[in-house]
Amino acid sequence: MSTHILEEILHPQSIAVVGASGSRGIGGVPFVSPLIEQGFKGKIYPVNPRHPEIQGIKAYPRLRDIPGSVDYVISAVPASEVLNMLEDCSQKGVKAVHLFTGRFSETGRPESAELEQEILKQARKSGIRLIGPNCMGLYYPREGISFVTGLPKEPGSVGLASQTGGGSVYFIHMASLRGIHFSKVISYGNALDLNESDYLDYFSQDPETKIILMYIEGVRDGKRFFNALRQAASIKPVIIVKGGRGKSGMRAAASHTAALASSMKVWETMVTQAGAIVAEDFDEMADLAVSFYFLPPIGGPRVGILGAGGGTSVLSADQCEEAGLDVIPLPADIQEELKSKGNPIWDWVGNPIDVSILGDSGFTGTDMLRMMARSQNFDFLIATVNEDAPATKEAIISGRKEEVKSFVKVKKEISKPFLVVVGEKSPGIKNHNNWRWRVLSEARTRLIASSIPVYPTIERAANSARKLVDYYQRRK
Amino acid sequence: MSTHILEEILHPQSIAVVGASGSRGIGGVPFVSPLIEQGFKGKIYPVNPRHPEIQGIKAYPRLRDIPGSVDYVISAVPASEVLNMLEDCSQKGVKAVHLFTGRFSETGRPESAELEQEILKQARKSGIRLIGPNCMGLYYPREGISFVTGLPKEPGSVGLASQTGGGSVYFIHMASLRGIHFSKVISYGNALDLNESDYLDYFSQDPETKIILMYIEGVRDGKRFFNALRQAASIKPVIIVKGGRGKSGMRAAASHTAALASSMKVWETMVTQAGAIVAEDFDEMADLAVSFYFLPPIGGPRVGILGAGGGTSVLSADQCEEAGLDVIPLPADIQEELKSKGNPIWDWVGNPIDVSILGDSGFTGTDMLRMMARSQNFDFLIATVNEDAPATKEAIISGRKEEVKSFVKVKKEISKPFLVVVGEKSPGIKNHNNWRWRVLSEARTRLIASSIPVYPTIERAANSARKLVDYYQRRK
Repeated sequence: MSTHILEEILHPQSIAVVGASGSRGIGGVPFVSPLIEQGFKGKIYPVNPRHPEIQGIKAYPRLRDIPGSVDYVISAVPASEVLNMLEDCSQKGVKAVHLFTGRFSETGRPESAELEQEILKQARKSGIRLIGPNCMGLYYPREGISFVTGLPKEPGSVGLASQTGGGSVYFIHMASLRGIHFSKVISYGNALDLNESDYLDYFSQDPETKIILMYIEGVRDGKRFFNALRQAASIKPVIIVKGGRGKSGMRAAASHTAALASSMKVWETMVTQAGAIVAEDFDEMADLAVSFYFLPPIGGPRVGILGAGGGTSVLSADQCEEAGLDVIPLPADIQEELKSKGNPIWDWVGNPIDVSILGDSGFTGTDMLRMMARSQNFDFLIATVNEDAPATKEAIISGRKEEVKSFVKVKKEISKPFLVVVGEKSPGIKNHNNWRWRVLSEARTRLIASSIPVYPTIERAANSARKLVDYYQRRK
Repeated sequence: MSTHILEEILHPQSIAVVGASGSRGIGGVPFVSPLIEQGFKGKIYPVNPRHPEIQGIKAYPRLRDIPGSVDYVISAVPASEVLNMLEDCSQKGVKAVHLFTGRFSETGRPESAELEQEILKQARKSGIRLIGPNCMGLYYPREGISFVTGLPKEPGSVGLASQTGGGSVYFIHMASLRGIHFSKVISYGNALDLNESDYLDYFSQDPETKIILMYIEGVRDGKRFFNALRQAASIKPVIIVKGGRGKSGMRAAASHTAALASSMKVWETMVTQAGAIVAEDFDEMADLAVSFYFLPPIGGPRVGILGAGGGTSVLSADQCEEAGLDVIPLPADIQEELKSKGNPIWDWVGNPIDVSILGDSGFTGTDMLRMMARSQNFDFLIATVNEDAPATKEAIISGRKEEVKSFVKVKKEISKPFLVVVGEKSPGIKNHNNWRWRVLSEARTRLIASSIPVYPTIERAANSARKLVDYYQRRK
């Protein structure tokens, strides 16, 4: 297999930021500081005729004034200046240009769409590849490349190609809280030159990428894309969010990235047949990424649930069943074992396990979880951190610590897929540091550090588990 | 209308806690400290033969040793001691007993179910009413009554009757973060004597209660319940979560509160026909409570969306449409107004409004929101706090502050229903105080203080709005 063109583009020795202090949209988006902050090891050349230096780095009035060679250009100049800039790029032997610059076909105006086509023509003539336009470009922590400040420096193994830049920023932050880090994130906007199929092909070959995520509003070449998808999905899990599913979403997608969306039913069928997985939004994409990242294959739908208190257990059963999982009764072998060990509620306790009735039974929730893990009747396990126990502060804090510690211990002992639910909260500023939610934050940190995937609700955990069951069954 | 029996029960002059230092389940549940903490103004009598005082209050060995009269008893004694205790209650002229005590019919054992029936018989004979058994009882902040420490002291206008105690604690905390406070919460467990219909009747008459919420696993008397429901729903919004919807949930409900669940389809049809609203879980119940609490009636499904960035706007349109809302194109009158005022993107910007393209158009998101509010074409508005802007820390912090300030201003100017989405986060302990999520907590506080309902996702806001539209259309 020959080296993918993106492999070269994504490893520049030097990056020029043209229109470096320019701002667009909310708050301005300076591209120099993210490179400095992430510790990009190559040369950084700010280009701006009005400033002799930017962020402490010497700036050049024009691209052609840069003394050294330039591999990669980030363009923040206005749309009307792009053709001139490409001229300079051509002279400097630039290999790739990321056009942050927008206001092209997405405006719906014929003259802007024409300008976009001229840009493509000129880039092709000069052998320059384009990322974008109308996008944030590249976040590649291993190489010290980023499109905004404040993103994690820690590299990972998840690749994301996305038609939304803001959504990418959101997703990187959110996923990193859940223990997911990235090989590369490419925000590619209007997909004028390099498009979804190129990014997909690249990620499928990229040894740094183990899981592929995509946010797509429109596909440039359907036939090529589905071939690429089938190929990629045969190698790695591919999870796709489709934006522009309905009438109004399609309109919005057209004015966002000039995407032409197609019928949703056809889309979902094709994506699933290609072996990829459909997610509804970024939150579900994170759930699925976390699941593939942390869990071994799930062999079937039979779930054992450690369900916190009574009401939570009842609703957990309902929501797991509604997600298509099989909440089997507590198997006879476990009942027999409980009975033989003198558990006084062996005939009462069920699946889900209501921890509030265990009391002085001599068995903890963890004991029960362990028995479920050993039983051949369960394909996987879900436990809920019991945040709603009616108890005192001290009891809740120490109870949660013990619970999490025991989950971590169980995880080390068992090979069965194990998911944990830790609730989210919407605090106000006065409650931001409330010990109740800090306990949950601590729980998350400890669980994730032990490679246990964490979900904010049982519904989302169940939904992810079901999609993984389907995925592994299709692959058989 | 005569005074409801619960009106008397819920205003005791004295409360005895029998088995006051007893513990059950996780961490123990002491009932004396919550009364002290909430500032109960009546007499508190701990009853415990092993302790001369509890929480600094003189304790009595037996109920009959209490010198004064006792209106209300909280029982934390073991199941086997309840009959004896009722004897004492009868002698003391007690009006109502809350049986925290559990391990009755919910164990599935005939002898426990029999004991439960004997208890009912004896209570009836003595004219004592029972709340429970197997429940947390009463949270009534206006009277200083609570079942755990740490619950808000602020009273409100939402009433909750619930078969889960842990779930009630969870819900009170969670709802209070979203600006909802309670008239009364009654956790009523197995509903042996007073049951769902009594609580519903009471809330429908209670002037302190404006919105009624219920978590029900099983109904004791279906015919009576649906009559009570029709009556209550004709006066106030009634929102019901049903636990035990599927096979496994029914099993779990039986072992939680001995509830006999019925077919879900029949249930949903009857609840909806009675004019009440079905919610799937406590989170959705909170969304709906917040909606009814803060919003004026929503007249129709046509929604105007201020959609944060491009990708978020596209997915917002999709998810609103999928929830059954009508995301109409930006109306011609608004386009004309934009054009006449010289907005250079009048033909590009749509509904949802992608704030990232407004840039130097001379119009802010708030300007656009205001125009939507004035237009007859929109029934209501949803705005998303733009957390995923690719910008610097300073720009995001000041941007969010400005945005929230402007939402509050718009809210004051308009009469149209207005919902705002502020994302939740699942931080780890290291990120718990990250400025990114603190900004969101601040936003929530300011919005809620201005009576704006806040939702964690666009999907949940859209779903609630749709249910309110249906509700108000049915009432016409």
